[in-house]
Amino acid sequence: MRKIITIGREFGSGGRELGRRLSEHLGIAYYDQEIIAEIAKRTALSEAYVRQITENRPLTSFPIHFGGRFCALPDPLLQQSISIYSEQHRLLCELAEKSDCIIVGRCADYVLRDSHPFRIFVYADAQSKLMRCMERRTPEETLSEQDMKRKITEIDRNRARYYAFFSGQKWGARENYDLLVNTSGQSVKKQAAALYEYLRKMAD
Amino acid sequence: MRKIITIGREFGSGGRELGRRLSEHLGIAYYDQEIIAEIAKRTALSEAYVRQITENRPLTSFPIHFGGRFCALPDPLLQQSISIYSEQHRLLCELAEKSDCIIVGRCADYVLRDSHPFRIFVYADAQSKLMRCMERRTPEETLSEQDMKRKITEIDRNRARYYAFFSGQKWGARENYDLLVNTSGQSVKKQAAALYEYLRKMAD
Repeated sequence: MRKIITIGREFGSGGRELGRRLSEHLGIAYYDQEIIAEIAKRTALSEAYVRQITENRPLTSFPIHFGGRFCALPDPLLQQSISIYSEQHRLLCELAEKSDCIIVGRCADYVLRDSHPFRIFVYADAQSKLMRCMERRTPEETLSEQDMKRKITEIDRNRARYYAFFSGQKWGARENYDLLVNTSGQSVKKQAAALYEYLRKMAD
Repeated sequence: MRKIITIGREFGSGGRELGRRLSEHLGIAYYDQEIIAEIAKRTALSEAYVRQITENRPLTSFPIHFGGRFCALPDPLLQQSISIYSEQHRLLCELAEKSDCIIVGRCADYVLRDSHPFRIFVYADAQSKLMRCMERRTPEETLSEQDMKRKITEIDRNRARYYAFFSGQKWGARENYDLLVNTSGQSVKKQAAALYEYLRKMAD
């Protein structure tokens, strides 16, 4: 059986850790930040820039009402955003073609829809996400709880807009996934092990 | 470990079958139609009437604009609907207290929230639900596909209203559940076995 698993996730829900652990259980490839690095290589743009474009909303300009008609101003940033998305699209298809894998984020559930991936969405309540983010702060990060809450809301808002822009679908809406997993107050390590058992049984 | 599992489900998604099969795997009680029968016994109302009240929206009258103020007419049907809900509430608490169990529908995730049940929501795409419902028609049911589609939509609309009325929450919204399972094109028998493995691992 071919196994392509995509994971959409709220920021701070532990979706990335869950994906990594699940890939270890299944013994298959795991792609997340590697995708940014590869796109940067292919487009000759910096990793930081590619990350900025792919992790923020792609629509940087709005149509302007002009002489009774709606016209979009030509926007080089939007153009570049779409080029990067196209490159990412190609790359995701190549990766899914190459071997079984888990891909985190990047509208992979939508991009790879013809391969019928198993689509997981990981989420948690606000308090759990805040706690996880505060615990995982690097020494350089000095965000207060209030600022971290704002950051979480902002990142998820961008993810929802990015997903809606490229897929035309609603991010996190159950109809776009096969399984939605709530990590609130749970051990992600244990959830990854449980999910592995679930998938193993489904593949019997 | 105590196991109280609640299952919310879209009509035709196989949620009831999934609950029954899961209860067999876990060797715990399963409550669904039994609840109707018990409430009927306790309230001396007919089972058919209790089913009608608990499976349709409880709000049967609307406030009427009267002399510049909104007034609700006293409505005996609404009163009775609330009495039946109260009886159901007591019964669910008694059942959860008595032994481990799986309870399907009836806002059980909300009613039993203080017992921290494991809350599952089962759903499927429109085509899968239609196929399942058409296959399971009794010989007396002569609904066309078009009529069955209407029936599915109507029942789910009522469930959503019932849930919203008594819980103040949105039916099927991921934040109200621990796991949401899409049964589209899947074997519910296999999914029940897989869910059992998931829960077993989580309880380790």
